[in-house]
Amino acid sequence: MDIKNLSKQSEKYTIDIRRDIHQNPEPSWKEFRTTELIERELKSFGIETKRLKRTGIIGILKGIKPGKTLALRADIDALSIKENTELPFRSNNEYMHACGHDCHTAMLLSAAKILSKIKNQFNGTIKFIFQPAEETCVGAKVIIEEDNVLEGVDAIFGMHIWGNLEYGKFNIEPGARMASADTFKIRIKGTASHGSTPHLGVDSIVAASAVVMNLQSIVSRNINPIEPVVITVGTIKGGDRFNIIANEVVMEGTTRAFSQEVRKVIEKKMREVVENTAQTYGAEGTLEYEYCPAPLINDPKLTDTALKSVEKLYGEDSLIPMDKLTISEDFTYYMDKVPGIFVFLGGGNKKLGIYANHNDRFIIDESALSRGTALYVQFAADFLNS
Amino acid sequence: MDIKNLSKQSEKYTIDIRRDIHQNPEPSWKEFRTTELIERELKSFGIETKRLKRTGIIGILKGIKPGKTLALRADIDALSIKENTELPFRSNNEYMHACGHDCHTAMLLSAAKILSKIKNQFNGTIKFIFQPAEETCVGAKVIIEEDNVLEGVDAIFGMHIWGNLEYGKFNIEPGARMASADTFKIRIKGTASHGSTPHLGVDSIVAASAVVMNLQSIVSRNINPIEPVVITVGTIKGGDRFNIIANEVVMEGTTRAFSQEVRKVIEKKMREVVENTAQTYGAEGTLEYEYCPAPLINDPKLTDTALKSVEKLYGEDSLIPMDKLTISEDFTYYMDKVPGIFVFLGGGNKKLGIYANHNDRFIIDESALSRGTALYVQFAADFLNS
Amino acid sequence: MDIKNLSKQSEKYTIDIRRDIHQNPEPSWKEFRTTELIERELKSFGIETKRLKRTGIIGILKGIKPGKTLALRADIDALSIKENTELPFRSNNEYMHACGHDCHTAMLLSAAKILSKIKNQFNGTIKFIFQPAEETCVGAKVIIEEDNVLEGVDAIFGMHIWGNLEYGKFNIEPGARMASADTFKIRIKGTASHGSTPHLGVDSIVAASAVVMNLQSIVSRNINPIEPVVITVGTIKGGDRFNIIANEVVMEGTTRAFSQEVRKVIEKKMREVVENTAQTYGAEGTLEYEYCPAPLINDPKLTDTALKSVEKLYGEDSLIPMDKLTISEDFTYYMDKVPGIFVFLGGGNKKLGIYANHNDRFIIDESALSRGTALYVQFAADFLNS
Amino acid sequence: MDIKNLSKQSEKYTIDIRRDIHQNPEPSWKEFRTTELIERELKSFGIETKRLKRTGIIGILKGIKPGKTLALRADIDALSIKENTELPFRSNNEYMHACGHDCHTAMLLSAAKILSKIKNQFNGTIKFIFQPAEETCVGAKVIIEEDNVLEGVDAIFGMHIWGNLEYGKFNIEPGARMASADTFKIRIKGTASHGSTPHLGVDSIVAASAVVMNLQSIVSRNINPIEPVVITVGTIKGGDRFNIIANEVVMEGTTRAFSQEVRKVIEKKMREVVENTAQTYGAEGTLEYEYCPAPLINDPKLTDTALKSVEKLYGEDSLIPMDKLTISEDFTYYMDKVPGIFVFLGGGNKKLGIYANHNDRFIIDESALSRGTALYVQFAADFLNS
Repeated sequence: MDIKNLSKQSEKYTIDIRRDIHQNPEPSWKEFRTTELIERELKSFGIETKRLKRTGIIGILKGIKPGKTLALRADIDALSIKENTELPFRSNNEYMHACGHDCHTAMLLSAAKILSKIKNQFNGTIKFIFQPAEETCVGAKVIIEEDNVLEGVDAIFGMHIWGNLEYGKFNIEPGARMASADTFKIRIKGTASHGSTPHLGVDSIVAASAVVMNLQSIVSRNINPIEPVVITVGTIKGGDRFNIIANEVVMEGTTRAFSQEVRKVIEKKMREVVENTAQTYGAEGTLEYEYCPAPLINDPKLTDTALKSVEKLYGEDSLIPMDKLTISEDFTYYMDKVPGIFVFLGGGNKKLGIYANHNDRFIIDESALSRGTALYVQFAADFLNS
Repeated sequence: MDIKNLSKQSEKYTIDIRRDIHQNPEPSWKEFRTTELIERELKSFGIETKRLKRTGIIGILKGIKPGKTLALRADIDALSIKENTELPFRSNNEYMHACGHDCHTAMLLSAAKILSKIKNQFNGTIKFIFQPAEETCVGAKVIIEEDNVLEGVDAIFGMHIWGNLEYGKFNIEPGARMASADTFKIRIKGTASHGSTPHLGVDSIVAASAVVMNLQSIVSRNINPIEPVVITVGTIKGGDRFNIIANEVVMEGTTRAFSQEVRKVIEKKMREVVENTAQTYGAEGTLEYEYCPAPLINDPKLTDTALKSVEKLYGEDSLIPMDKLTISEDFTYYMDKVPGIFVFLGGGNKKLGIYANHNDRFIIDESALSRGTALYVQFAADFLNS
Repeated sequence: MDIKNLSKQSEKYTIDIRRDIHQNPEPSWKEFRTTELIERELKSFGIETKRLKRTGIIGILKGIKPGKTLALRADIDALSIKENTELPFRSNNEYMHACGHDCHTAMLLSAAKILSKIKNQFNGTIKFIFQPAEETCVGAKVIIEEDNVLEGVDAIFGMHIWGNLEYGKFNIEPGARMASADTFKIRIKGTASHGSTPHLGVDSIVAASAVVMNLQSIVSRNINPIEPVVITVGTIKGGDRFNIIANEVVMEGTTRAFSQEVRKVIEKKMREVVENTAQTYGAEGTLEYEYCPAPLINDPKLTDTALKSVEKLYGEDSLIPMDKLTISEDFTYYMDKVPGIFVFLGGGNKKLGIYANHNDRFIIDESALSRGTALYVQFAADFLNS
Repeated sequence: MDIKNLSKQSEKYTIDIRRDIHQNPEPSWKEFRTTELIERELKSFGIETKRLKRTGIIGILKGIKPGKTLALRADIDALSIKENTELPFRSNNEYMHACGHDCHTAMLLSAAKILSKIKNQFNGTIKFIFQPAEETCVGAKVIIEEDNVLEGVDAIFGMHIWGNLEYGKFNIEPGARMASADTFKIRIKGTASHGSTPHLGVDSIVAASAVVMNLQSIVSRNINPIEPVVITVGTIKGGDRFNIIANEVVMEGTTRAFSQEVRKVIEKKMREVVENTAQTYGAEGTLEYEYCPAPLINDPKLTDTALKSVEKLYGEDSLIPMDKLTISEDFTYYMDKVPGIFVFLGGGNKKLGIYANHNDRFIIDESALSRGTALYVQFAADFLNS
């Protein structure tokens, strides 16, 4: 079973599918054409499919003998970005696959094709999850809850193509790799009065400013310095007229952390800062804190398996280190339920120009795709046959 | 010449006019009916009139011999407040004379009537200025510039009825009595970046918060404590999305001071705080500072004259002290050009309920009006014949 | 009874005494020589004396008939300042009468001399209080409590010579004239830890800094802008080593206000700021607030009497206005018990150079002294005979 | 060459030496007895020695053939801590080997003994550096500059016993492992004035407080969140009297970082904050920033060698991960000059009680020492023979 070669032979297929999807991007929850395409392909491989309630689809492939169930996941939605490349297959509408989900989908379809051919060589079951709406941060959460996609699943594997990594290289590390991305809303309620008589009111703008200042010290003083953490107030709005003491300020923002413990400390300290600072000024401060995608923490055993899969395919040299990312992935909703591993596949090539994911000139070297396909297959075989 | 009695005899006229205007309030720059009413009355007294370019009107009355020229001013516009009283002559539209300009107009018309009858008892010229748009803070400025209303004027006298003072009492004090009311706009320009990578941007919300905090110390540390001063940031707005570092914050506000020197210190220090604080954070801070109505500072000689006029009419006991007011008056635009005096006439009566000016239940005891009429006349006589 | 002339005749005596005391200044609670000098003089006028328990002395002079009792007060101590003038009678030690208490003492002795001669021209009793230790802020408090100096007193009159006022002029105004001068100590308790692990401690320096920032807004936001108020943190000290999180910061300071209400608001708001800000940071904040000399508020009736006394002596032109002073006087301890009036006598003369009180070059024009003497006498006569 | 056994056979020697040194601790730059003991032992092994100019000593051992030169380093000084254990060999004076330098010295001596016996089995030269004054942060710097201890050295190896790691385990990781520990002094110069007249001075306490607040945002906003960084203001002191505006505040502190780039950003941003914030308040701010021990960054090749040495000796399971430490090591002064590797040896045993280094009850399980000895020897052999 020479997976590397099988994948190479499937390369043209992978690239064709990828370009088709790239040219016809669809936004979150509106991946209708993409879902149909996937369904058509999976069915052509003889794989059992099941449409999800909104958009997206899953495929189910059984091996030769009963065994464990592994989920392989690709996300399928595009971004609301106007593509700014000269590619012949560039987007024909106002959306863009600037985060590489077109590649994920194509690689997983190509892997499904290969796996359908070699299904007598592995035990257990593979569930292909073509997930909608990753960019909303809740796509995974919705299909777990509404479609029960993790039913019977023992482990899950995800992959992301990455513009800032060299094409064809893999980054696979245990532990925390991506951040949680919680959101918050702070309200500071004061009391309006004429701007010339501040003593008759409670100035919510001064209190809110003190809150912002005091929040900085949570990062600088309250968290272990070796724990990366971000608290960003992204918007602030208060007051109706230049000459009236503002009776309310509302601020919204996001936090990032790499462990559940730190998230809890952040929420607790933010609440203390907001409430006590407001009280300092005679105002009332409230914090709404919403837990969104958790930190992405790779399972150590699955990490080992994936590392060995890569070494088998392309040798140790194809592995490269990468710093943790302070962005988040809704893949963590799966990891909340079952052991998971999330790997990065390099797509950047200096000759083409290196652009970060979400850039309107994002471009990847397609020669990386057959490697991603191969890893899906190899990991599945290694996990199911172990 | 018993001015007190003449005024008392004219009381019914004053009250009738006042109620007519009260019932038909007109907002700034739209005092069409009010201007016509004034014109009709002035003409009926044989006083020469001149319509102003927008709204408002002046009357000119010459005494027996040439002499000085005194301006007597009343403001005529109403506020955008829905009246909330049960008065039989309450407003019949969505505006309200909640600041007593109806009284000012009626008292000055009544005074004009009396003065027209006793014009052979004084020298010089009286210019009656029925000013529009005081509530915009620039009515006086506009008619000085566009209509040259201060041409030939040696001094100006203004009066304000005041809900918080006992009806029939006068407050007349030398020096600073009302505040300047300048406006400002602060812009803090940072650099956007994703909220998870604050080091790639410049957070204008944190910088703006530091600006607000630092501004407090101008009042607390940089100004002589015995100089009343206010710096109010009334609105703050920045950032577009909760998870993006805000690239700009805009704040608007107002300042109050009781001397030209202090205003200049405020502007200078604010500029230092805004620019240097922004720079502290690697942001760019700019201050637009607009000088609006100046502090209202009564001329000491005219104050003496007015005090003596009141003593002649109603005795020393009718004078009462009152704290400086941190609100402003566009009467100061006249004072920038000629010596001026601005007095307060009490209109409050506990039996009717005491409401501050601008309250939607503002009510005054009309028995005060004949006293205001008398002071207009007495002051004119005393000033012109001295 | 031509008091003006009597005082002029006593001028040489006044100046001699003043120079003697000036040359031999004594610090607070050590006014031994000065007390003896006063005792000798008072006895020589036939005035009954009573040494106070520590230093200082009172004299008692009865008029022709029983009546009210008036206290006339002069303070007698010098400052710990090395005199920097070329006066022939400059200080011969390390202290200096840089606050004019030498003049107060001399003028009151001279007044006592005159009053002892005309005692058959007034009713009631005069108590001459030669008070020690005014510069400690508690001299008055101590002699009221320990020596009961206000026993039987109906009213008290005090005078201060002032370097920044023109010599011979008087400033006498009703209401608040000098500030309260309360003191406070703020402690912020955190938790020490190594400077490299801030999350294991509570950083009292950051919390204390936030307290200082937040205190500024009491002045700028919580007090009526027309009420002068000062909150000064004069000292800050915290932390033992550069690389250890400071477990405590201590700050000391002073506040100034011109009314009892404002003092109470200051204390209340400071406590809120200290406690809540500390809590914001997980630290513990405590405020010790000590009420010291109260605002000096002149009694309106005594103010009227004094104004008339001055007008009789030197005419209305000898009165000049002066802004409130944010410094304090322990004379207010008398005023807490009996109605009081405190007046300022100008001592400055441009030809000699104008220096503020407490300057080491403080110099006054001695021709002012006979006016001060005269006012002591005139006020006593006017008060006791009314 | 069974190094593991050789080390085990030398265990009693190692422990005896360790206890002797433990019982007789000497502070930085006063390690006289310790230096003599080391000299005696090295000479007894036939190793050439060279006393350093202050305290400390080096030994030189040549292998069978010329080759590379490797330095093995142990630090030898104790801390000014009163020992609080019941060990029979506890400190007999006011110092304590609470950081395990006694173990380092004993292990390196034991390794020297073994290496002297097997010198015909390796090429090149071993330089044993017994370094004084590590606890001062500059011991290494001094002996590099004054004694030229790195002359001819190709690489250096250091080891630290660690109370919080399980005894006998090793932590060896590439890249940044310990922080830089720079120091700074901030001066804020204002202008004194009386506390009642803040507008006549410049309040350095308010300006300093704003500096402290603004410094927090360097950590929270200006540094990549995945880069651990600490800025601690450890001491603050300003003002002389509670009622005088403080004319100067001085603050001292420390910073931590794990890369040279971050250190430079910290210094640059701190300077901007200090200078611009002071200027915001009309004060003058200056920053003195001293670069002290750099981040400890393990050389990747030497890390590989050390990892393999450990695997040979005790297998992969004896390796355990450990988070970066925000404390510092003066070992980095060697690393500034030559490639270096610094490893941690676990010394903690729950049965004895786990105490962090520098705790006055710090205790280690001596069974770990033979493993440390073995790694010194194995690494030397592996490095020199490769």
